[in-house]
Amino acid sequence: MFAARYVPGKKELSLVEVPKPTPGPLDVILKIRAAGICHSDLHVLHGEVPYKESFTMGHEACGEVVEKGSEVFGTFNPGDLYAVHGPNPCGHCNYCRTGHDNLCNDPSRTFIGLGQDGAYAEYLKVPARNIVKVPKGISPEVAAVATDAVLTPYHAIKTKGGVGLGSKVLAIGLGGLGMNGVQIALALGAEVTAVDLKDANLETAKSFGVQKVLNSKQISSLTPLSFDVVVDFVGLESTFKDAQNFVKPGGTILLIGLGSAQVPLTTATAITFETKVQASFWGTHVEMQELYELIAEGKIKPQVETAPMKEVNHWLHELEAGRVKSRMALIP
Amino acid sequence: MFAARYVPGKKELSLVEVPKPTPGPLDVILKIRAAGICHSDLHVLHGEVPYKESFTMGHEACGEVVEKGSEVFGTFNPGDLYAVHGPNPCGHCNYCRTGHDNLCNDPSRTFIGLGQDGAYAEYLKVPARNIVKVPKGISPEVAAVATDAVLTPYHAIKTKGGVGLGSKVLAIGLGGLGMNGVQIALALGAEVTAVDLKDANLETAKSFGVQKVLNSKQISSLTPLSFDVVVDFVGLESTFKDAQNFVKPGGTILLIGLGSAQVPLTTATAITFETKVQASFWGTHVEMQELYELIAEGKIKPQVETAPMKEVNHWLHELEAGRVKSRMALIP
Amino acid sequence: MFAARYVPGKKELSLVEVPKPTPGPLDVILKIRAAGICHSDLHVLHGEVPYKESFTMGHEACGEVVEKGSEVFGTFNPGDLYAVHGPNPCGHCNYCRTGHDNLCNDPSRTFIGLGQDGAYAEYLKVPARNIVKVPKGISPEVAAVATDAVLTPYHAIKTKGGVGLGSKVLAIGLGGLGMNGVQIALALGAEVTAVDLKDANLETAKSFGVQKVLNSKQISSLTPLSFDVVVDFVGLESTFKDAQNFVKPGGTILLIGLGSAQVPLTTATAITFETKVQASFWGTHVEMQELYELIAEGKIKPQVETAPMKEVNHWLHELEAGRVKSRMALIP
Amino acid sequence: MFAARYVPGKKELSLVEVPKPTPGPLDVILKIRAAGICHSDLHVLHGEVPYKESFTMGHEACGEVVEKGSEVFGTFNPGDLYAVHGPNPCGHCNYCRTGHDNLCNDPSRTFIGLGQDGAYAEYLKVPARNIVKVPKGISPEVAAVATDAVLTPYHAIKTKGGVGLGSKVLAIGLGGLGMNGVQIALALGAEVTAVDLKDANLETAKSFGVQKVLNSKQISSLTPLSFDVVVDFVGLESTFKDAQNFVKPGGTILLIGLGSAQVPLTTATAITFETKVQASFWGTHVEMQELYELIAEGKIKPQVETAPMKEVNHWLHELEAGRVKSRMALIP
Repeated sequence: MFAARYVPGKKELSLVEVPKPTPGPLDVILKIRAAGICHSDLHVLHGEVPYKESFTMGHEACGEVVEKGSEVFGTFNPGDLYAVHGPNPCGHCNYCRTGHDNLCNDPSRTFIGLGQDGAYAEYLKVPARNIVKVPKGISPEVAAVATDAVLTPYHAIKTKGGVGLGSKVLAIGLGGLGMNGVQIALALGAEVTAVDLKDANLETAKSFGVQKVLNSKQISSLTPLSFDVVVDFVGLESTFKDAQNFVKPGGTILLIGLGSAQVPLTTATAITFETKVQASFWGTHVEMQELYELIAEGKIKPQVETAPMKEVNHWLHELEAGRVKSRMALIP
Repeated sequence: MFAARYVPGKKELSLVEVPKPTPGPLDVILKIRAAGICHSDLHVLHGEVPYKESFTMGHEACGEVVEKGSEVFGTFNPGDLYAVHGPNPCGHCNYCRTGHDNLCNDPSRTFIGLGQDGAYAEYLKVPARNIVKVPKGISPEVAAVATDAVLTPYHAIKTKGGVGLGSKVLAIGLGGLGMNGVQIALALGAEVTAVDLKDANLETAKSFGVQKVLNSKQISSLTPLSFDVVVDFVGLESTFKDAQNFVKPGGTILLIGLGSAQVPLTTATAITFETKVQASFWGTHVEMQELYELIAEGKIKPQVETAPMKEVNHWLHELEAGRVKSRMALIP
Repeated sequence: MFAARYVPGKKELSLVEVPKPTPGPLDVILKIRAAGICHSDLHVLHGEVPYKESFTMGHEACGEVVEKGSEVFGTFNPGDLYAVHGPNPCGHCNYCRTGHDNLCNDPSRTFIGLGQDGAYAEYLKVPARNIVKVPKGISPEVAAVATDAVLTPYHAIKTKGGVGLGSKVLAIGLGGLGMNGVQIALALGAEVTAVDLKDANLETAKSFGVQKVLNSKQISSLTPLSFDVVVDFVGLESTFKDAQNFVKPGGTILLIGLGSAQVPLTTATAITFETKVQASFWGTHVEMQELYELIAEGKIKPQVETAPMKEVNHWLHELEAGRVKSRMALIP
Repeated sequence: MFAARYVPGKKELSLVEVPKPTPGPLDVILKIRAAGICHSDLHVLHGEVPYKESFTMGHEACGEVVEKGSEVFGTFNPGDLYAVHGPNPCGHCNYCRTGHDNLCNDPSRTFIGLGQDGAYAEYLKVPARNIVKVPKGISPEVAAVATDAVLTPYHAIKTKGGVGLGSKVLAIGLGGLGMNGVQIALALGAEVTAVDLKDANLETAKSFGVQKVLNSKQISSLTPLSFDVVVDFVGLESTFKDAQNFVKPGGTILLIGLGSAQVPLTTATAITFETKVQASFWGTHVEMQELYELIAEGKIKPQVETAPMKEVNHWLHELEAGRVKSRMALIP
């Protein structure tokens, strides 16, 4: 079958033919219907994460179950869509047993498409416990990008940020995750202010119902110390400083973006105002189920474009060049 | 009466005679029995906090109520000790009404002894709602230093850190707050590791029951990513980096120390391990009541030395020079 | 001034002339603009709560501040509306200091209009700390009934029930509190099922957006063990049994109604399914502020009828006879 | 091999020879070293739980792993003890995935020894994911009874009750669970009062450090509304009424005992004092790990007697007759 594989040292994926995978006793085989591309892929291709072995890339997967292992129960109907929980948790470590399967620390666990074979292929082998049924009416490409670009802000904003009815939220950065993030905050009942450098993004955010948008250059016009939660989708030194300036005493900064290697926390301000900085990582299996319900109900509308999977290298370049407007899913 | 007053621009307190205060309708007058000195005093004398007006310094106060305002109810017996809740909260802002009176944001509120007259004097005027009865058997000097040097780590470790039975805690720095902090963590049932540069402090910590102590130079022998909660009592770039290295995935760094103006948070590590950094400020009125119970039961034994109040400038110099072993209280 | 007063042993309020109150140092005087009537009034008139002294009844108050005590700061403009926080908390007990002022246990505290003079009068004396500013655009009668008939379900459902986005909520009983309760649950993002004996109430609930309504006689058609939260607005043996039948394993029954003196908890079921029963009482000062924001934004639309205050005894009879459709406010 | 099996309709276990079990791909076979007996066994033998099929009884198991299925990883050394997590959760339902595996609701799941073969036998088949390693130094009989008689109060008091340093706890009933429960509350830092009908039990509780003990007949001498948490280990109407009388406003009643089929909740009192009743069921896998640490450290000392497994029917009679002093484990 076709697969786009990472090869250590190469800056582009290798488009090759590989054998179709066969399931272990606890696995299913998905026929891929859509696979989202993500900035994390670029980090890997740039050598920032030192994988020593080749693997098929792609960690945002949606497909149909076409085969299952001997110990997998349940029936899978042709046409039913399943999405993959990319953290690929083991199910038996203490993180998995206490509801934090995004932090699974089983030593033999690797992420789907990041260290082991992923979704840029015709077929994908994955443990049956790590797929989630996609409700009718959600397209494969939306289901695929939701596994990361919606799940990550959902976990951060709802679970780690505790955003709810009446929360005052400042969202910094309206890229793929940020644009889903503001919709999630609105669905939770928050009053949302969003800042971004691109006015077009501000317009889109406004169309989703964001109460106040402003260009990042005008951020100083906001009231200091006035937001319950500030979500830093960018993670640059400058955005993190903004976050600290605008979060309320006792409030929370959610750190999601990886813009700078380090961000500076001003100690006197943090202590006087008892600031909490909560970094947030991906999301859990059960949160995936919840957010598909919200997408099915129309409360979150992930933006996504599609392209043929064979063009994967082209679209990775486009993503790097900032020319992917929303989020991109590849179709085999 | 005698008072040691901060005068803007002067590096030493002015020892002067001032009129004895008279109570407003909601105030009491305390005859000071002990007043703790604190590093914060030095920060003020160094001009780091730009107060424009003179005031009597001293924010760790214990005394007897000798007079009360017309609207103050209850009886105060001679000899009964009361300690002062230094944040001096207003009681009607939303922080006060929701159990966060350490973060009171009433615009007219100032801390006792930091912006308005404090405890380095024979008498102190304070709102009756901001004093806490000290149980029998606790000395004035212990009661005084507990208002900050015990309350601050208690609030951080119990309330903000959620430390409890079986928590694995790493305490970095065994100064005045750290030495009380490890006792608090032990009282909460934690398994405590403590690091400090001074071996004498490590010995003292061990005598309190700390399970593992080691010199800061050996900190790299600890297992990375292995503590539920790391308490950074120092707040230097280096200690904060240690904190990030040793906190568990999903764990909490408590930031208490102000050693560096900024501490660096490594974004990739923080996000991958979903680290929480919780800065913590002083403590609440009700927490003060709780910790006096713990001191009365012998579960926390605050270390304190005493000296005559007129020697305040001498002891501030000693504190600055690092020659105060534990915590110092002044007696009028 | 006019006042409608409870007199021990009498089944009707006495309509009398009494002196206009004068404020203590910490009080304000409200000119009453609307006063809600409530089933609790009937309980008192029936002698179920053994008050030994006379007092002016009425615990749901809205008015304008026309006078203030010597220690009350701030400016009160003519025409600005203020509502009264009926639990009348002291502000210094440990419940008040930890965010639970609805449970204030100061021995000298009494509720407004239930043990001390209340709102069925032209003027009301109340501690300045226990009034809440009503946003522009909310009528006095809505502001008045919100102090209990909206605050009680808001506190229960949001704070004690933890209802949020995606919660599955069953509301049993659509009287005054229940009808506000379903709107609150919807505003929090819940999926709401409501049951009531009166089809007209079901229609109204549907018009607010309740996803599923059914007559109490059909309640057995619901799926057992399927709701995260069941709110028992009735509190009869039968409704409480329903609540236990339909709440999920690990779920919460909110007990608000006082229909039966006792409700039976089936131990084997409760234990096997780890049920939580949370009784809920009135609400807090800060929750009042929050819910006025929600009313101002149109997210909750309290239903209220008005009548002249002098007709208070007539309307208490009507309430008892079940002929008050929603909630009733009296206008002086 | 030997097995003591429940047969529907019979009041005694049938002592029979059955084939030794063979593991499925995900199972291990334990050679039983100790099996605790429990009141739940009596409920089954009395026909209160209508099982239609025969099975080997025994849900408190400790043994050595002697065989494993093809998909089970890890090494099991002879002599190493493992205890069984009796709720036998599936690992993939939403309760299991969110840290509530005691409430696993997989339709095909049955408890070990309650509906499927259990521990009153020489060998036991159990999913590998549902065993917990027992630290060195803990005896098989202690490890066995801990799986229920310690786990149940641990889950209730720590997790559901939130008991911690300084909590005021009233324990009603000092049977097997209650006697472990008071030790758990003490280990958590609580101030514990215990009541029981038997003075010998009160003496034992005192020897564990319980601060105050009194005979149930004197319970009215306690201060009403004065305990943060009341643990009802009995679950009779009378004990539950006591619980409601003595729990603080805003406090929690933990319901563990099944003494009466129903317990009555007084609505007016519950609502006025915002009481929470939390029923509690068994405990989780990770809690089992935690409590073995506490037992290994000597913080909890479960009382247990042993007898030969073949005497199981005799000891079930003794248990029913109230002649088992603490908790009984059977040794094959």
